Amino acid sequence: MPVMVKALIFDVFGTVVDWRGGVAREVSAIFADRGVALDPAAFADAWRGRYDPAMAAIRVGRRGYQPLDLLHRENLDATLAEFGLSDLLTEDQRAGLNRAWEKLPPWPDACPGLMALKTRYIVAPCSNGSIALMTRLAKYGGLPWDAILGADIAQAYKPDPKVYLAAAAALALDPEEVMMVAAHNSDLAAARAQGLKTAFLPRPLEHGPGQTRDLEPADAWDVVARDLEDLAATLTA
Amino acid sequence: MPVMVKALIFDVFGTVVDWRGGVAREVSAIFADRGVALDPAAFADAWRGRYDPAMAAIRVGRRGYQPLDLLHRENLDATLAEFGLSDLLTEDQRAGLNRAWEKLPPWPDACPGLMALKTRYIVAPCSNGSIALMTRLAKYGGLPWDAILGADIAQAYKPDPKVYLAAAAALALDPEEVMMVAAHNSDLAAARAQGLKTAFLPRPLEHGPGQTRDLEPADAWDVVARDLEDLAATLTA
Repeated sequence: MPVMVKALIFDVFGTVVDWRGGVAREVSAIFADRGVALDPAAFADAWRGRYDPAMAAIRVGRRGYQPLDLLHRENLDATLAEFGLSDLLTEDQRAGLNRAWEKLPPWPDACPGLMALKTRYIVAPCSNGSIALMTRLAKYGGLPWDAILGADIAQAYKPDPKVYLAAAAALALDPEEVMMVAAHNSDLAAARAQGLKTAFLPRPLEHGPGQTRDLEPADAWDVVARDLEDLAATLTA
Repeated sequence: MPVMVKALIFDVFGTVVDWRGGVAREVSAIFADRGVALDPAAFADAWRGRYDPAMAAIRVGRRGYQPLDLLHRENLDATLAEFGLSDLLTEDQRAGLNRAWEKLPPWPDACPGLMALKTRYIVAPCSNGSIALMTRLAKYGGLPWDAILGADIAQAYKPDPKVYLAAAAALALDPEEVMMVAAHNSDLAAARAQGLKTAFLPRPLEHGPGQTRDLEPADAWDVVARDLEDLAATLTA
């Protein structure tokens, strides 16, 4: 008898919300006010580009766990320097711009899809974002999570196996009773390696119109859907 | 300038849900099926009576942190023995009865009160119940939490100061930006000692009609309300 999935846990940046569009919007507003001409999407890409390297030091144990909010803040300084804008913003203004990550628009299918999935499953983020960040993001976008799981619970960053296992353990479920939902093949591969079920959906505009990665499922994931409403239609059929 | 409260965190058993009524209902159903005559509320009281002693060993460090679900399960065995019913239920039936704690009815004002408070504040449980238990309880009763905080996050039990401080830290808030809401004076005293704001509301029937404790605020708490709808009316006025 197949094991019943009881909870769906979600990658958030890219899978549920449009981080590039949201960050670019905030960057655009703060720079336009100061007469700085730059491509806000390029700034968002550069800021996000420092995400994985910043977590790497923690993943390999060279640095203790720090919430992503702090890494975003450090990466903002580095990105401003990269763009020759180190003198542009005060500390308070940088802290304010860092909160761009708390104001990311959900993809249009995200809220209706999650609302439908929530009627049958526990739904929770399993993101590298902190509880603080995920909570504010959910309030901003109306994401109806049942709980906030992810990096803070595990004190580790995906794709560290601890993050997937801690999410299942926090719900008192076996890994095979939990399905990881992501637009990133690498996230699903790491989840599957720990025994979780997997669902892929493409987000071909996550990285803008020139995106080349994660356009297709790279493995035989348990479910492949067009978006979160389609996933809900499939799983609640 | 007074510090703005940004999040409300809640005691749950007694303050938000009627544990005694909910547990008694499940006990009554399982025992009636087996022809056992007992007062289900007395059984609920005896089961709950083992709650504080079970956590005490963990609070003083004699035992490592264990989620409350496990303590409830151990306490069920002891309570069945106390009532001379050790042979009545199989392991599976005991596990099923233990899930009574996931099916507790919210007090009638709880959901409307939380919905109203959620429009202005982050709302989250700060309970000794686990994330698994709080998540299922929320789904059962429709409690609209923004996040699940409490014992699991802190790996400690209230009134250990760590639990209150971990809840504020998980939200990236200072303690004075967080208000603890409880029907128990001792919970509020412990929260206040860590710098949190405090709100009291009485639940005069939590322990049944003969209740003698926590009928009134025992200190000058920041807010005193009749119930959660009244708290919402006060805080969102």
